[in-house]
Amino acid sequence: MKGTYKALWLNKQGDLVVLDQRVLPFIETTVTISDTQSCIEAIKNMTVRGAGVIGNTAAFGVYLAARESGGNFDKLAKYAADIRTSRPTAVNLMWAVDRMMKVAKETPPAQRVERLKEEAITICDEDCITSQKIGQYGADIFAKIMKEKNKTTLNILTHCNAGWLAIVDDGSALAPIYEAAKRGLDIHVWVDETRPRNQGANLTAWELSKAGIKHTVIADNTGGHLMQHGMVDLCITGADRVSRNGDTANKIGTYLKALAAKDNNIPFYIALPSSTFDFAIVNGVKEIPIEIRSEEEVKFIRGINKEGIYEKIQIVPTNSPALNYGFDITPARLISGLITERGVCPASQDAIESIFKDLL
Amino acid sequence: MKGTYKALWLNKQGDLVVLDQRVLPFIETTVTISDTQSCIEAIKNMTVRGAGVIGNTAAFGVYLAARESGGNFDKLAKYAADIRTSRPTAVNLMWAVDRMMKVAKETPPAQRVERLKEEAITICDEDCITSQKIGQYGADIFAKIMKEKNKTTLNILTHCNAGWLAIVDDGSALAPIYEAAKRGLDIHVWVDETRPRNQGANLTAWELSKAGIKHTVIADNTGGHLMQHGMVDLCITGADRVSRNGDTANKIGTYLKALAAKDNNIPFYIALPSSTFDFAIVNGVKEIPIEIRSEEEVKFIRGINKEGIYEKIQIVPTNSPALNYGFDITPARLISGLITERGVCPASQDAIESIFKDLL
Repeated sequence: MKGTYKALWLNKQGDLVVLDQRVLPFIETTVTISDTQSCIEAIKNMTVRGAGVIGNTAAFGVYLAARESGGNFDKLAKYAADIRTSRPTAVNLMWAVDRMMKVAKETPPAQRVERLKEEAITICDEDCITSQKIGQYGADIFAKIMKEKNKTTLNILTHCNAGWLAIVDDGSALAPIYEAAKRGLDIHVWVDETRPRNQGANLTAWELSKAGIKHTVIADNTGGHLMQHGMVDLCITGADRVSRNGDTANKIGTYLKALAAKDNNIPFYIALPSSTFDFAIVNGVKEIPIEIRSEEEVKFIRGINKEGIYEKIQIVPTNSPALNYGFDITPARLISGLITERGVCPASQDAIESIFKDLL
Repeated sequence: MKGTYKALWLNKQGDLVVLDQRVLPFIETTVTISDTQSCIEAIKNMTVRGAGVIGNTAAFGVYLAARESGGNFDKLAKYAADIRTSRPTAVNLMWAVDRMMKVAKETPPAQRVERLKEEAITICDEDCITSQKIGQYGADIFAKIMKEKNKTTLNILTHCNAGWLAIVDDGSALAPIYEAAKRGLDIHVWVDETRPRNQGANLTAWELSKAGIKHTVIADNTGGHLMQHGMVDLCITGADRVSRNGDTANKIGTYLKALAAKDNNIPFYIALPSSTFDFAIVNGVKEIPIEIRSEEEVKFIRGINKEGIYEKIQIVPTNSPALNYGFDITPARLISGLITERGVCPASQDAIESIFKDLL
């Protein structure tokens, strides 16, 4: 059905339904979003997460905001501004809201709700095509490395989740993995658990399990050792924002893996749709804002108890404070290439400006 | 009392009592070890952990084995061999057992139990003095960096636990921190939680809390970002084994922090007693054996629930395998210096062979 993707879809009433990513992998359930406030909540509390899916949710959020504001453009603009600032690092969120509001402005009030619904669907459909292309270009790289290194199995390390739970419909970093599996390449994925929220252990492992792709979950501390001992052939992650010079904001800890890859001469790729670029920012390390989230995410952890029921337990002493940065910046110099829907782009300002000049 | 240290002590019956480090920080309780088997168990299941305290426990274990074997040297030798192989990476364990068995061999059966008890106490007492000296040399470095960088607060990052829970009686990496606090230096410690067993969040945070030293717990993924943004002045960790060329085995993840320190021009120190050197191994990266522990440590995590009761919850999907390396090797080239009881030694084969030539 039109408007239906793996991580989110429209129901018959035209409300947005999203997979509740907070309770994966142990419970598969959904949350229905029918107004602006619940859209913002879902983004903030990470019912939805992942650069693309945040953008998609925000796009549908603008459509729901139009429905809610009954033709009042100022009200819609206010709602849209609230959605736009619900999380600070992922640029797709801002990109999607801006694109939706451009359409809103150009559309007469009577057609606005329907037109915005169409536009949000178009954004998602475009993301699907983008994801497929990233998958193709990425899988080509995998095949090339396997051939060059004469590998029967390709060991790929990934951090956080950049699968179909993050970008419709097959992800950014995981798209080439799904495509490689389709092509019959023998791959195995090292899944960083990705503390503090464990999107790797909870989401990537779940996605790969569902797809029957070989994988092993590791503590975030482990990747360096694996790379030092020839157990990783390639690293690939998604991105939350990439600046004009190729510096990449992604889940906290990505930078450490990029350093280890460099130290061991292992290719380190970032996979992203071009909507993840922030061309207004030249120097990512200095300028991309990094979200600080609640210390509770470090001090407490959720999982299932013996009865299979979700439970939150405390793992840090009550008197010890914690600090929780959500992202870090991997400098362009550590990145082997940016896998986009337009092909593989070197992580340099010249290359980015040349390949994406129509978007600048 | 003689034979009394913060993490372990002899009771009136001459049994060994150890703080149960598995239930810290939320419960303070002890385990009594009165025979070889329970000594091995305590080392294997990590009731005790940390290079030094493992060695101390093993030393007392040989004394208890002598008591248990009633003058039968072959039986004692068999028990000692079992203790010696209870964990594969920490060299202090082997070092302590070998030293104890040398004494056992030289002592007539009738005096053996008493003599071995004395020797184990001597090992611990020597460790205490060593720890104090490491504290002095390390704090001198801290003071120098604060002066050079004109810092009012020194931000120190540490990984895992190398405090008095790891080496009697003030640790290796934490000894300079305790000493700096005593000297009135204003310090703040970034505590890596240290997945999968969270020795940082559980043990280091608890130690620092008790001592009233400012600290903040962070996910292991965070250190790179902090270093990139000038929030870390110095890194210091302990070690489980250091080869003749200065390569250092320490808790998994240490290597990643050393890479980030190098990339950001931040000093990275290893603090260790000389008993942690393994002079028989020249190239640590290639030769130091790395323990693989149960995948359960990655897939499950322990903490306290709302009622304050310890509970183990599952955090990785049942169908996803996990792999759990306990340690990694930080190559000598990333290490600013080895802080030992003999002073600060450059991490190079020449320097190590020159400063420790009497031990080769």
